[in-house]
Amino acid sequence: MKTLKSGFFLTAFSFAALFHSSCDQQKKDQLALWSETSPKTDITTFVEKITNPQSPDFVPVDDRIAVFDNDGTLWTEYPVYNQLLFAIDILHEIAEKDTAFENKEPYSKFLDSLWMSNGDISTHDLLALIQKTHSGFSTTEFRERSAEWMKTTKHPLLQKTITDLSYSPMVELINYLNENEFQVYIVSGGGVEFIRAISEDIYGIPVNHIIGSRMETAYNPESGEIELQSKIEFIDDKEGKPVGINTVIGKRPILVGGNSDGDLAMMEYASKGDYPFLNLLVHHTDADREFSYDVNSKIGHLDKALQVAKDQNWTIIDMAADWKQIH
Amino acid sequence: MKTLKSGFFLTAFSFAALFHSSCDQQKKDQLALWSETSPKTDITTFVEKITNPQSPDFVPVDDRIAVFDNDGTLWTEYPVYNQLLFAIDILHEIAEKDTAFENKEPYSKFLDSLWMSNGDISTHDLLALIQKTHSGFSTTEFRERSAEWMKTTKHPLLQKTITDLSYSPMVELINYLNENEFQVYIVSGGGVEFIRAISEDIYGIPVNHIIGSRMETAYNPESGEIELQSKIEFIDDKEGKPVGINTVIGKRPILVGGNSDGDLAMMEYASKGDYPFLNLLVHHTDADREFSYDVNSKIGHLDKALQVAKDQNWTIIDMAADWKQIH
Repeated sequence: MKTLKSGFFLTAFSFAALFHSSCDQQKKDQLALWSETSPKTDITTFVEKITNPQSPDFVPVDDRIAVFDNDGTLWTEYPVYNQLLFAIDILHEIAEKDTAFENKEPYSKFLDSLWMSNGDISTHDLLALIQKTHSGFSTTEFRERSAEWMKTTKHPLLQKTITDLSYSPMVELINYLNENEFQVYIVSGGGVEFIRAISEDIYGIPVNHIIGSRMETAYNPESGEIELQSKIEFIDDKEGKPVGINTVIGKRPILVGGNSDGDLAMMEYASKGDYPFLNLLVHHTDADREFSYDVNSKIGHLDKALQVAKDQNWTIIDMAADWKQIH
Repeated sequence: MKTLKSGFFLTAFSFAALFHSSCDQQKKDQLALWSETSPKTDITTFVEKITNPQSPDFVPVDDRIAVFDNDGTLWTEYPVYNQLLFAIDILHEIAEKDTAFENKEPYSKFLDSLWMSNGDISTHDLLALIQKTHSGFSTTEFRERSAEWMKTTKHPLLQKTITDLSYSPMVELINYLNENEFQVYIVSGGGVEFIRAISEDIYGIPVNHIIGSRMETAYNPESGEIELQSKIEFIDDKEGKPVGINTVIGKRPILVGGNSDGDLAMMEYASKGDYPFLNLLVHHTDADREFSYDVNSKIGHLDKALQVAKDQNWTIIDMAADWKQIH
């Protein structure tokens, strides 16, 4: 008996050692790219309390919903949304095939190489551009084209391809939340099919966790494909974000990441639930490593949300100070 | 050494025994309510091959998407959709508060206790009824009312409350698919918020896995609630089902359950993918335990889909023969 027992204990000990070493692994800093400043503490404190079954703030796994804006929150959006660059490249393709198209309004202004400096582009013209360039494809074709474009196109100012524009600390945060049994969604003003094309690859977020603006779609029984129609069906911005969240998730998030006034409504939405919540506002303060902009920028316009975040004591991420690495 | 070793082996043996007994547990028939007929074999054969990494038919976990229609597929829909009964109860509430309402067209016909036998109800009138009774609530209130109603209301012909109308073999199938790492969604012509009210309780399917017809919604910044507007935004039926699937899931399902012509498009959609697929068509053949209807019924009209299922060799579930128990 004695020898058997000691054998058992030795084996049990090996198991325990194995277990312990795997715990050590897990104790490695999962937010290593975040500086030791208050946003990191805010995040870990929040996650620890809501995952602790002994805490009054405990949130059951099924209700751990985290949502992130994409442009300017998870990847670079400046000086112009990546999807807009994509749209203009598609527009050039259309113009190459149809020379009469060159002079057609409102498209011609986007074909001018100086379009970005041509002053204000109206919302009407932008929507016309999107409707023209984001229709006539099946979703399968559209995602393939989008993915190919993002893998091969360089950002106009940074020496990086579009797929390398994601913020490494945010990818780390997504992983950290996944490990704590959050369900992480993207809730973007950008197009849902454009983001689906690369979300798994660059963020590890599957296509069924992407909420975005949508074109109307129709099922084609012959091809068995979903086809993008030439009309915008839903704009997932501002008050549209809580609406998009309800359509797809049907639950109020407890953690929201955003960077502009377009994200304010979904942050307020999170703040009105019964659970504890954490709102993270990314502030573009890093002119050296990325860009610095807020109230005076049309892209990623941040004014009201910054004030509300200060008033409400939400977490403001100062990119220059709080992130050890950007891309 | 020898004693240590034998101790180790004995311990290892206990572990193995433990493991073996847990395997035995798992080998218990997970589809015990299904007769030993071809649908059960079709299901287990399909699931075994697509979960076997050595099989050429293996499907990675992320792509194991299963979708089920609700009315007539997961619960009883006859002689009238449960949600329609709910709408009429709400209509009576409205009429009680506003006596002038009684004579208002097209609502008055639904207030007549003989409405069901009053002959054909037009789609126009049905939509008017839904828009009147499914708006003016927040989604939170609407789900609470729906859940309360389903828990306390009896089916007009069966001696059961609405929440007891789910088909036990289908609940078993959903569990079996979940254990095989499928993501199971409901894709229903019924309203998304109505189903969300009870999907977790009766099927174990969370609210973010419900796709259905939708009212327009708006975010109310004061209350922080999503409010149902008085306009139908999307009808999740026929060719709308693949569209709804793409909007929320963004992937083609590999397993589809349905029971009417309204489910044919999503079954064809599944059949046009690159993976193996399984289409299950529930045929209401059981006049003793439930109801028997197909081509001559307006509710759950089944004609073309039955023919296609036969032609394509899809799996037809004969409720009388293939299910040991209904509810």
